[in-house]
Amino acid sequence: MAQKFVYFFGDGKSEGGAEMKNLLGGKGANLGEMARLGLPVPAGFTITTEVCTYYYQHGRKLPPGLDKEIRSHMARVEKVMGAKFGDPKNPLLVSVRSGARASMPGMMETVLNLGLNEQTLQGIIAKTKNERFAWDLYRRFVHMFSKVVMEIEDELFGRRLDELKKEVGVKLDTELNAEQLKQLTADYMKIYKDHVGSAFPSDPWKQLELAIGAVFQSWNKKKAVDYRKINNIPEWWGTAVNVCSMVYGNMGDDCATGVAFTRDPATGEKRFFGEWLKNAQGEDVVAGIRTPQPINEESRSHGDDGSLPTLEKEMPKCYKELVRIYTLLERHYKDMQDIEFTIQNGKLWMLQTRNGKRTATAAVRIAVDLVKEKLITPSTAVKRVDPDQLDQLLHPMFDPKAKKNRIAKGINASPGAAVGKVVFTADHAVEMKAKGEKVILVRLETSPEDVAGMHAAQGILTARGGKTSHAAVVARGMGKCCVCGAGEIHIDDKNACFTVGDIVVKEYDYISLDGSKGEVYLGQVPVIDSEIVQVLRGQMKPKDSAIFGYYETFMKWVDAERVLKVRTNADTPEDSRMAVLFGAEGIGLCRTEHMFFDTQRILHVRRMILSDTVAQRREALGKIIGYQRDDFYGIFKEMGGRPVTIRLLDPPLHEFLPHEGDREKIAEVAKELGVSPDVVAKKIVSLHEFNPMLGHRGCRLGIVYPEITEMQARAIFEAAAKIKKEGGKVQPEVMVPLTGTVEEMRNQKAIIVETAQKVMAEQKVKFPYLVGTMIEVPRAALVANEIAAEAEFFSFGTNDLTQMTFGFSRDDAGKFLPFYVENKILPGDPFQSLDTAGVGLLMSMAVKSGRDARPDLKCGICGEHGGDPASVKFCHSVGLDYVSCSPYRVPIARLAAAQAAVEEREAAAKGKAVTTAGSAKKSARRPTVPVAKKATAKKAAPKKAAAAKAAPKKAAAKKPAAKKAAPKKAAAKK
Amino acid sequence: MAQKFVYFFGDGKSEGGAEMKNLLGGKGANLGEMARLGLPVPAGFTITTEVCTYYYQHGRKLPPGLDKEIRSHMARVEKVMGAKFGDPKNPLLVSVRSGARASMPGMMETVLNLGLNEQTLQGIIAKTKNERFAWDLYRRFVHMFSKVVMEIEDELFGRRLDELKKEVGVKLDTELNAEQLKQLTADYMKIYKDHVGSAFPSDPWKQLELAIGAVFQSWNKKKAVDYRKINNIPEWWGTAVNVCSMVYGNMGDDCATGVAFTRDPATGEKRFFGEWLKNAQGEDVVAGIRTPQPINEESRSHGDDGSLPTLEKEMPKCYKELVRIYTLLERHYKDMQDIEFTIQNGKLWMLQTRNGKRTATAAVRIAVDLVKEKLITPSTAVKRVDPDQLDQLLHPMFDPKAKKNRIAKGINASPGAAVGKVVFTADHAVEMKAKGEKVILVRLETSPEDVAGMHAAQGILTARGGKTSHAAVVARGMGKCCVCGAGEIHIDDKNACFTVGDIVVKEYDYISLDGSKGEVYLGQVPVIDSEIVQVLRGQMKPKDSAIFGYYETFMKWVDAERVLKVRTNADTPEDSRMAVLFGAEGIGLCRTEHMFFDTQRILHVRRMILSDTVAQRREALGKIIGYQRDDFYGIFKEMGGRPVTIRLLDPPLHEFLPHEGDREKIAEVAKELGVSPDVVAKKIVSLHEFNPMLGHRGCRLGIVYPEITEMQARAIFEAAAKIKKEGGKVQPEVMVPLTGTVEEMRNQKAIIVETAQKVMAEQKVKFPYLVGTMIEVPRAALVANEIAAEAEFFSFGTNDLTQMTFGFSRDDAGKFLPFYVENKILPGDPFQSLDTAGVGLLMSMAVKSGRDARPDLKCGICGEHGGDPASVKFCHSVGLDYVSCSPYRVPIARLAAAQAAVEEREAAAKGKAVTTAGSAKKSARRPTVPVAKKATAKKAAPKKAAAAKAAPKKAAAKKPAAKKAAPKKAAAKK
Repeated sequence: MAQKFVYFFGDGKSEGGAEMKNLLGGKGANLGEMARLGLPVPAGFTITTEVCTYYYQHGRKLPPGLDKEIRSHMARVEKVMGAKFGDPKNPLLVSVRSGARASMPGMMETVLNLGLNEQTLQGIIAKTKNERFAWDLYRRFVHMFSKVVMEIEDELFGRRLDELKKEVGVKLDTELNAEQLKQLTADYMKIYKDHVGSAFPSDPWKQLELAIGAVFQSWNKKKAVDYRKINNIPEWWGTAVNVCSMVYGNMGDDCATGVAFTRDPATGEKRFFGEWLKNAQGEDVVAGIRTPQPINEESRSHGDDGSLPTLEKEMPKCYKELVRIYTLLERHYKDMQDIEFTIQNGKLWMLQTRNGKRTATAAVRIAVDLVKEKLITPSTAVKRVDPDQLDQLLHPMFDPKAKKNRIAKGINASPGAAVGKVVFTADHAVEMKAKGEKVILVRLETSPEDVAGMHAAQGILTARGGKTSHAAVVARGMGKCCVCGAGEIHIDDKNACFTVGDIVVKEYDYISLDGSKGEVYLGQVPVIDSEIVQVLRGQMKPKDSAIFGYYETFMKWVDAERVLKVRTNADTPEDSRMAVLFGAEGIGLCRTEHMFFDTQRILHVRRMILSDTVAQRREALGKIIGYQRDDFYGIFKEMGGRPVTIRLLDPPLHEFLPHEGDREKIAEVAKELGVSPDVVAKKIVSLHEFNPMLGHRGCRLGIVYPEITEMQARAIFEAAAKIKKEGGKVQPEVMVPLTGTVEEMRNQKAIIVETAQKVMAEQKVKFPYLVGTMIEVPRAALVANEIAAEAEFFSFGTNDLTQMTFGFSRDDAGKFLPFYVENKILPGDPFQSLDTAGVGLLMSMAVKSGRDARPDLKCGICGEHGGDPASVKFCHSVGLDYVSCSPYRVPIARLAAAQAAVEEREAAAKGKAVTTAGSAKKSARRPTVPVAKKATAKKAAPKKAAAAKAAPKKAAAKKPAAKKAAPKKAAAKK
Repeated sequence: MAQKFVYFFGDGKSEGGAEMKNLLGGKGANLGEMARLGLPVPAGFTITTEVCTYYYQHGRKLPPGLDKEIRSHMARVEKVMGAKFGDPKNPLLVSVRSGARASMPGMMETVLNLGLNEQTLQGIIAKTKNERFAWDLYRRFVHMFSKVVMEIEDELFGRRLDELKKEVGVKLDTELNAEQLKQLTADYMKIYKDHVGSAFPSDPWKQLELAIGAVFQSWNKKKAVDYRKINNIPEWWGTAVNVCSMVYGNMGDDCATGVAFTRDPATGEKRFFGEWLKNAQGEDVVAGIRTPQPINEESRSHGDDGSLPTLEKEMPKCYKELVRIYTLLERHYKDMQDIEFTIQNGKLWMLQTRNGKRTATAAVRIAVDLVKEKLITPSTAVKRVDPDQLDQLLHPMFDPKAKKNRIAKGINASPGAAVGKVVFTADHAVEMKAKGEKVILVRLETSPEDVAGMHAAQGILTARGGKTSHAAVVARGMGKCCVCGAGEIHIDDKNACFTVGDIVVKEYDYISLDGSKGEVYLGQVPVIDSEIVQVLRGQMKPKDSAIFGYYETFMKWVDAERVLKVRTNADTPEDSRMAVLFGAEGIGLCRTEHMFFDTQRILHVRRMILSDTVAQRREALGKIIGYQRDDFYGIFKEMGGRPVTIRLLDPPLHEFLPHEGDREKIAEVAKELGVSPDVVAKKIVSLHEFNPMLGHRGCRLGIVYPEITEMQARAIFEAAAKIKKEGGKVQPEVMVPLTGTVEEMRNQKAIIVETAQKVMAEQKVKFPYLVGTMIEVPRAALVANEIAAEAEFFSFGTNDLTQMTFGFSRDDAGKFLPFYVENKILPGDPFQSLDTAGVGLLMSMAVKSGRDARPDLKCGICGEHGGDPASVKFCHSVGLDYVSCSPYRVPIARLAAAQAAVEEREAAAKGKAVTTAGSAKKSARRPTVPVAKKATAKKAAPKKAAAAKAAPKKAAAKKPAAKKAAPKKAAAKK
């Protein structure tokens, strides 16, 4: 067993460094790096993350040999620090902290002052000549150890402390004297014994062993698991343990402790920014017991009257040293740093440095500034902003200054901020909108019938359903704010109100929704467009915005890097306009069914559905075509010659009729249509489907009722002709949904092409157009070469493709999907981030075989994954031409696409190929740790995801090859 | 254009022959072959099927150059026959007939006597010296030409003939004299002119051109299209046209005509068997106007009193010649022949020979006899019986002699014959069964709730639903007779009866169902087991059966050829027993949910579903385990050590509860469970799914409720332990349903393995077992290598795999699937015969990548395709280890598997690989005909099915390679 488990740092030397983050965790790697840079770091050592992995793979046992290695490293620390662990005369005390690859704040609280016992305490007293200080350390240590290592309830200790203070008649901890602290320590030890069943361990080595075990155990505690889940950190990463010599900021007035950011983490401004406290230990700064002081004038907060003394003024030498160090660290790491320091008897010690967390605004500004400062290149800057974070900069938001009365919390289904009057039906929403009212549509859950109402509403609130519910999906598609699954609200249809506990919210009462937080507020919270949107809309001058200039520069770099085009999913001229402002280069998915739900039109749609003959159907369709043509004309106009992909009618026809049991609505519809309710009811029954997802929809409608396809094609082409006649440009791309066989494609294409030719002849004008298909049925991907013989483009409908590839109904998966994610059956929700191994393999197969048949085949994605950064990166890797997403996600997709291109280029430069699967997303697969002796069941599982192996031979997975095969421009017909 | 369109035959010479069937059609090829053999064939020529294809690809135009070729071939015919087409003195008359690759009886009626007009008629009169005969030919020609070529209503001619007979006061056509026939001819010509608008064409060449065009057009007439659809004949095959010199059996008493089979087509007995008529034309024999006479004593039918004169006696020389020829033909073709002959003035002419159609009994017997006669080898014999036809020999049948009163016709969903009392609910069926009554369950449609009732019933009749409806699928799975979609019946629940027109059938009235014909009879039609089943069951001695010995010999050869194993889908000991008699080598799918529906158990199942806690659920499951263990024990016992694959619970839980709206049933269930109806209703609502097919079912149940998996595994292993303790053999294979990710498999396998170990320890006995999975979700096939790391076997659930790969819900596809098949969007119903290009590609990928990860991975199929011959052949080609099908289809699958092996071996010997896709099924793809000048849109489509190309590199598709990689025996645990 030649493996090394422990890495030393200190005294200007280090066995590890920043490049070893995976092995040593972020904290350990950076401590090593700082030591290497010659910075004053208290000596210590790091136990690797591999030990953590071993620990979990071997029934929570530490590997043999670890103990020996720890002892030899401790000896080295002792030598550097001039003290000895457990020595009664000259004791070395240490801190024990976890440190994972990624920062996981608060995952495990640190154990400080480890190594104290009755004997070493005496050494401390002798060294510091401060009995009170020593007993204070000791009681703190017993408390922390009990709480963190033994998980004894914190409150027990707090209560004892309060009792003691009452007994002795003091208010503050600091007022307790040495004797009293000694008593407190004894009391704490009793609490320990009562709970653990044995005495508090006095052997420092035993203390250390228990603390290390506790750090590893903390990795699987609920709060750590939850944090990992939210932040997509795989369980198998594990945590490292850092054992570090203690230094003290609380040994007197020449001592201090503080934290600082090298730039402002909220705005990104270049100013050194931090807080400190004299004569204090680290946690005092953040705990809020004492008001922390600004380290310099620039760090004063608004409420600060200027009286709080700064470090700069109080300890100018140390401050100067700190400035030297932070400047060096920022130059070294080429990024804004979040640092922790302690001053012990006038000597500055660096306890930590890491890349600082920041807001989206700060991220963009810092990235741009660092380029200007020539610390990084624009390519690196592009990688410095998390695409998902960009969202914050774009969506409308509640005025941060406003007061809010939160009444319920649901799921943050679709971001944004919405304010409006409560209505309970879609029709009502439409009606109110027509009157110029802003409404929030509140429903138990939504169905396709509600789409017009959703469109009319400012936001949607549902009591049921998760992030993949109908409400959530449609709202995101519309870029509309939505809070769903707010289980606390009870809708009372009879009394036209909903209740949350005692609160009754009536129809027409105002509420506000925060779609990013999933919160519901009573009343009208003031909403503002984000600055960037205000500037884009021309409602604010660029120079009046602190961030717009940075955003613009940054996005310019983004666009320079990216290869993938970014389109938008938009069904209306308004959405199209917004998307263009956000940089959309076309429409990747224009759904026509939403247009069908409009109140003026649905009557004709229903008449069409109830038709018995082709002639009747044609007559009804004849009433709709004018509306559709106007829709398309408006969208073409907004898109100004950019390509517009229009999907033909997709949903099953029963979605346009009332529900089977809804007698009232059936009667109403029957009356409108002038038929008996029985006729409507019978039609509803005849259209009933057991599995509508797999039913009579998509091109199956257009094949059985070719006149629907013909009407839609005609509307599209007449609108195109009108644009051309007006001297405009237009590029319609007609998309056949749900194709599974080439014969379907052939059938629908024939109708579309014939209609195009007719319209061109009638209107005496030519326009370019393409005919292609969604690839959303697994079979389509499997026979892509056949289909590509007819289809001029593919657009992966990854929502349905994911449903069918997994056999998951998005509407029903709520019954098991959360359980699956929680229990690691799935690494994440495949409807949110593309399943690269399964669905992705189908995509790469289809791209490859489709381009075998038609080298200039245009390939895109229009499922919701088109706006998910990890999925966008995958799309880049399989050689798609574009991704398409909702308007507000366009900048996010642009950024993700740019990052994919940069990462690919960098990997190529390193001689490593970016693998198709798994590269975009942190892999859920736990690698086998070499130290494991027994092969576990997992070992038998092949390492590489299926995609990498089974994927069509070489080319498809790799961007450059696929690109070469597909000259982009050739596809468009002239 | 060097292509040859026309092929000559006659005078012992021929340009074509039997090997050119695809080009010349069956009739033309065989006429050529007979000519080559030196048999007396009237000279003629064949216009190829390629001309037909050209005709349809070029807007119904004949290729240039054809006319010239026809004329030069006609000249050769004229020379041989010593007469000239259109010559007034010595005219040659011809027949024009269609002739496709496969015999398509009645597709187009022949045009005889073509070449007649006022002038050539005189030549006939002069040659035959028989004016009446000549006019009779002429009027027949005008009639046939009008009817066949111009599609003038037959009745018009019949009516005119009747009128004329009345006018002249005769009863028979033969009583009309020459003058009257002349008048009739003139009248016919008037009818022609009235309908066509121009005079009857007198130019023989014009007649010929029109007749040839008509033959080609007949290829796409409804009756031809229908016939093709039923018999799976692709449209692009086209038909040939045979132009043949006329010979006459009606020129006097030394003339005759007849048809014969070289062996008995009903029984297969080796006896020359035929009918003839003196002085008659061919159609007289079949038209039934004159009673045909036996050609020999052996051909006399039962009703024949021996007075009808035989050809053998009347024309012994010709008969002897005929015997010589038929013997020669049978030896030459090595198969039973169906021949047509005409004797003109004492000279025998052979008009046709072809392999004769025969019953299943005859097919088996003839195949076996031909081997005994050393004409063919057993391998060839195996290919001689259509697997589907074998069905006839196995299913119970109505006594053919019984009288029947048919009251309705539905869809022949599941073959068999059933008689019983009508009941209208599943519960009622179960109740009656318990009383020993035989019942027919009559339902509007069935749902999973009805399964217990279906099992209890003799047969199922539904008013709604097609071949893929729930009733049909489940009934076929059970091997139970089912007629579904009998739209004429109206179920009147209130009055407990159903009506068909005026007929009222009450509860408890007897009806009989013929599942093979889809017919419903009033009363009890006597049912008998097929002879083979009677013998297999030991109810008849083998020697008392005319066919059993042949069947046994034949199936021995079948088993000697086949490589694929054949298992059965069986859920009960009875089904298992029957399947073993039919040769099943194991159970490939034992569904456990049917066991759950049993009345005694469903209460506990419902209690389990309503449980709120794991403890409650365990308690309810504890009530079920005993039943399940007994079920498995019974099945293991019957299977005597053969492998038994048991699928864990698959359907969504709501299937075990009443329907949402069924208040009555909900109240009943609530009462049984001792809870309020509201509790049951709420649970039903909470379990509701929009797309149950893609919902919370399969292993998703076992993962969320691991105690269900544990209970089922325990029941299986306890039953296995019991068998072992009794000294028996057992091989359980536990199958996880609906797996989509390896984590699911790992999760379920862990529970199963742990349970197995516990049971072995408790019972102190070891038994072998495997744990594997269904591959029925597309993703499972895509990540098969990952899953195979855990799964020890794969069983392709091609029902669900087809649903998800196509995105077709089997329950809903009735809305468009028939339209798709009718309109050639799909070549056939993919639920009946496997879609090799799409679903098949997933299968071949999965087999390959699964065996990459686990070389001894056992692969089988348990979808309904396992009993479809074409699909079985595909399964052979991708290297599966076994197919599994319902008991009655086991012999069919055995035969199909044997044929696949023979075909593969023969193809290999010829140096041709059997391609993976499309080989099993006639391809639906129309090849481009080389004579086509313009490339059609279809040309762009790549020729080979996707499977062949995209399929994992080499091995998977080819049996031998895959086999080598998978040593069979290794898989079983010891």
